[in-house]
Amino acid sequence: MQLGLSVSDSDVSSFTPLVVLELADDTKAEAITWLLNRIRDKQQNGDGEGFLSDAECQYIIKHELDTLRAKNEEHVPGYPKLKLYPGKSVVRRLQSKGVLIQYFPLHNKEDLKRLSFSWYKKFKLSLQPLDDIRHYFGEGLALYFGFLEYFTFALVPMALIGIPYYLFDWEDYDKYVLFAVFNLVWSTVFLEVWKRCSATLAYGWGTLSRKKAFEEPRAGFHGALGFNPVTGREEPVYPSSKRQLRIYLVSVPFVLLCLYLSFYVMMVYFDMEFWAINIYNENPDIATSILLFVPSIIYAVVIEIMNLLYRFAAEFLTDWENHRLESSFQNHLVLKVLVFNFVNCFASLFYIAFVMQDMVLLRQSLATLLITSQILNQVMEAFLPYWLQRRRNKKVHKRMRRLMGDKELPLLGQVQLETEMNTYLGTFDDYLEQFLLFGYVSLFSCVYPLAAVLVVLNNITEVYSDAFKMCHVFKRPFSEPAMNIGVWQLAFETMSIIAVVTNCALIGLSPQVKAYFPESDTQLILIVVAIEHVLLAFKFILAFVIPDVPKHIQVNLAKLEFDSLEALKKRVSTHFLKKEP
Amino acid sequence: MQLGLSVSDSDVSSFTPLVVLELADDTKAEAITWLLNRIRDKQQNGDGEGFLSDAECQYIIKHELDTLRAKNEEHVPGYPKLKLYPGKSVVRRLQSKGVLIQYFPLHNKEDLKRLSFSWYKKFKLSLQPLDDIRHYFGEGLALYFGFLEYFTFALVPMALIGIPYYLFDWEDYDKYVLFAVFNLVWSTVFLEVWKRCSATLAYGWGTLSRKKAFEEPRAGFHGALGFNPVTGREEPVYPSSKRQLRIYLVSVPFVLLCLYLSFYVMMVYFDMEFWAINIYNENPDIATSILLFVPSIIYAVVIEIMNLLYRFAAEFLTDWENHRLESSFQNHLVLKVLVFNFVNCFASLFYIAFVMQDMVLLRQSLATLLITSQILNQVMEAFLPYWLQRRRNKKVHKRMRRLMGDKELPLLGQVQLETEMNTYLGTFDDYLEQFLLFGYVSLFSCVYPLAAVLVVLNNITEVYSDAFKMCHVFKRPFSEPAMNIGVWQLAFETMSIIAVVTNCALIGLSPQVKAYFPESDTQLILIVVAIEHVLLAFKFILAFVIPDVPKHIQVNLAKLEFDSLEALKKRVSTHFLKKEP
Repeated sequence: MQLGLSVSDSDVSSFTPLVVLELADDTKAEAITWLLNRIRDKQQNGDGEGFLSDAECQYIIKHELDTLRAKNEEHVPGYPKLKLYPGKSVVRRLQSKGVLIQYFPLHNKEDLKRLSFSWYKKFKLSLQPLDDIRHYFGEGLALYFGFLEYFTFALVPMALIGIPYYLFDWEDYDKYVLFAVFNLVWSTVFLEVWKRCSATLAYGWGTLSRKKAFEEPRAGFHGALGFNPVTGREEPVYPSSKRQLRIYLVSVPFVLLCLYLSFYVMMVYFDMEFWAINIYNENPDIATSILLFVPSIIYAVVIEIMNLLYRFAAEFLTDWENHRLESSFQNHLVLKVLVFNFVNCFASLFYIAFVMQDMVLLRQSLATLLITSQILNQVMEAFLPYWLQRRRNKKVHKRMRRLMGDKELPLLGQVQLETEMNTYLGTFDDYLEQFLLFGYVSLFSCVYPLAAVLVVLNNITEVYSDAFKMCHVFKRPFSEPAMNIGVWQLAFETMSIIAVVTNCALIGLSPQVKAYFPESDTQLILIVVAIEHVLLAFKFILAFVIPDVPKHIQVNLAKLEFDSLEALKKRVSTHFLKKEP
Repeated sequence: MQLGLSVSDSDVSSFTPLVVLELADDTKAEAITWLLNRIRDKQQNGDGEGFLSDAECQYIIKHELDTLRAKNEEHVPGYPKLKLYPGKSVVRRLQSKGVLIQYFPLHNKEDLKRLSFSWYKKFKLSLQPLDDIRHYFGEGLALYFGFLEYFTFALVPMALIGIPYYLFDWEDYDKYVLFAVFNLVWSTVFLEVWKRCSATLAYGWGTLSRKKAFEEPRAGFHGALGFNPVTGREEPVYPSSKRQLRIYLVSVPFVLLCLYLSFYVMMVYFDMEFWAINIYNENPDIATSILLFVPSIIYAVVIEIMNLLYRFAAEFLTDWENHRLESSFQNHLVLKVLVFNFVNCFASLFYIAFVMQDMVLLRQSLATLLITSQILNQVMEAFLPYWLQRRRNKKVHKRMRRLMGDKELPLLGQVQLETEMNTYLGTFDDYLEQFLLFGYVSLFSCVYPLAAVLVVLNNITEVYSDAFKMCHVFKRPFSEPAMNIGVWQLAFETMSIIAVVTNCALIGLSPQVKAYFPESDTQLILIVVAIEHVLLAFKFILAFVIPDVPKHIQVNLAKLEFDSLEALKKRVSTHFLKKEP
């Protein structure tokens, strides 16, 4: 690869590059000149340096690039086939045709050093520097780390209760009723309190009452040229009915097929399980007792692989559905992935708990699934990319040295290095992992009280490994303003509703409770169902009554609005009285 | 009472009065002069006549009166005890101390004639003139009549299915499963479609994306003088903790006590019921078979009386809770009234259905309750006020004639007449009645298919009697802009959730379904519960997936916002480039 820095004529030392655009190797010179002119056209007014953080400047640059629109050009200069029409986003056209390979913000070495020191390099018991993270990476990522921290802290009481439970009641499978009640309350309160924390963070960062920007069509969206009914601009139009057909005739059946496959794999796992138990029963020694765990471990690995493969399929399908907006694409992707991952991870546990009603097997399965998936996750998420990154870094360093000799060329080197880094694909996978962990804990931790302890341990290392990978494994991502964790709040809330139902059912199944109704199962079931309905109603009332935004922030927001209204009134009245010059 | 029209010096014939302020008989002259001067102060710019409808002008006048604030006056002239402080609402102070008795908008005789003709005077099968109603009474009331109409139409299919059901399956108590399933789907779809209808109406009237105006403290709110943290103005402040104490230590126990009383009355009713059945069994003839209905009728009347008494108590208590905002007052009042009315009206039906499991008694009770309460309602709501009004009108006419001789003085006469008319207290009672009817239909109509027919008949007369009472029995109310039916949407949705649960339980109890599980009740219950959970989940997903605002309105709103954004951008850029003169 040849490296041409278009800024090489200006003074490199005093210049802090923010964003890198990587063009294809064989890009025509005239196209480059044209693009630079067009970008500089937009640059007239310049940013107020120092006033905005790096991350904000980068966000603005991204916005400016994304809204760079063709005027009268019929095609990209040098590329007669890359047709343009007035209003078409230039960057998207270049990107979709492979001329512009990528554009990404550059790391700021000094800020990064400072951030990573306060974040994960010193061993500390203090909280994460969320404001610094937000300053460097933007609100979206800072909210993720805020959530991770909050979730971990919220699990501590559960872990503390879980340890003695685990140590002293290990053989006493019946005593889980109290723990199930605790889980049930915990999972409801957890999310309500988070909403308030999230509002407090977002208020502090000024994004709480942010209006959604007008959304442009996503890069991959295609269709016949038509008119947007809202903007009146020319843009590709794709009939919604066609998309619906694709969703209901292809995507939905595909998801159902995958779910069936997942069930099939589950049944194979149960066959393996029985086979292992039989061998153990025939010949109980250490070797066969270890064998008991093998089916679960294999199943856990298979689950992770299936999740991974499905993820690619879901992305492909959702892309093919041709959604106009990024948000709609994301919603459909999240829905597809969540449904499958939920079934894939939890179906076997539900089956063991409610069809087989075997609490010993449930406990063993849960433990193996949880531990195996955590280990796999840490490896796949942090160690593997880190190791690949190191190998790549070394190669790049070597090549740079061969190319430049011993001359220092920090900027060019940095760009070269970061260009080859992996791209961070957003917080999707990180939230998904937390979602599944939340599921394990809130659904079934009453039969395996150590689950919370394991998740706390996992999340502590997760903070470090996520922090490390953000700073050193991935390209710096563009910062994205966010006022909350978006669709994930809904996903976690749905899980907490399922948790109420599940825990009520587990309580109903417990021998302890059953002992109260020795004669009639009917009465027991009716009472459990009644309690469950009351709890669900209570949960909804609670969610409704607890304000999502703390009182003092509500007052501040109201004050802001009142002041702006008063100012508007004054302006209007002076306008009427004096007729502005 | 002496009548002094302060406009009597201007030309009466060309002047259309909009709003009447009734001051106390012994109001000091200097206070009147001061108040008129202060009001005229505000009037400088005048309204663009013809541009706004009467109702809108009246709304503006009300707003102007409500925001008439004291400047430097220490007290109301002539009333040294009526203290004022800068920023205090003048009208509220006058009102709370009984100087200003009331202020209300006047009817416009010609518009009213036209409206009432197209609304209820001609016998027609066409829809109500919602746009005209909105024009004369404002959006809040028009939405109520829109809802009433929509509800009635939505019930027609149910009534049509109900009639043959009632005629041919009357003795066959088992065949209600299908009807229960229909109810279940109907109650969900009903509310989702209404949301879209309501959005369409509100969009047409321009109130759909209306921002809530800044809310002033309500008239009855009192407390030590302090500073409002939002506006910085001096105003009464009442600590929220004290209010919470009043709510939880007085209001909640009182409501619970009333609920207990309601249960007690229910038990007395059952005793009466058994006593009547015993008499009938001992000596079955026509007299005793009529006696069978007497307990239900008495109970229905007692329920209505208890609802009425409770209503007064709830208003008193909520007022005493001293809420700062009218909206918060309304929410607490609605909650109190709804909980009690729901229990009072439906507890006996639930008891009969699920504890006694006596479907024959349930049907009989439901029929008697429904018919009795409808008759009572129509009497209390329309005929009684109408009759009282006619008596009062005659008296006023007689007195006017005695006072003025035979001289025509239409304006003074109209003011005099309308002053003594009852005040319309808002749509609360009307919605409450519809809410209870919705409950009867969606909860239990499967065992008494004629319920929908009765409700349809009731609502047809309701439209006429409500229309009549709005036009001729009550003072014209101030129009109130509204974008939807507010808290009632939530109330109806809650009822529809209860309807799903109830109908599932009724299905589970039906002999038809029970026949499929001859051996085990347990299995039946588990299956019914599972189906109920799936239905509830489906209901929530449906509510989430169906957009509340129809597509074409969404596009129009987006276009509006886009255009205003573009206009803002242009304004900002010309500002930057040219530096406005």
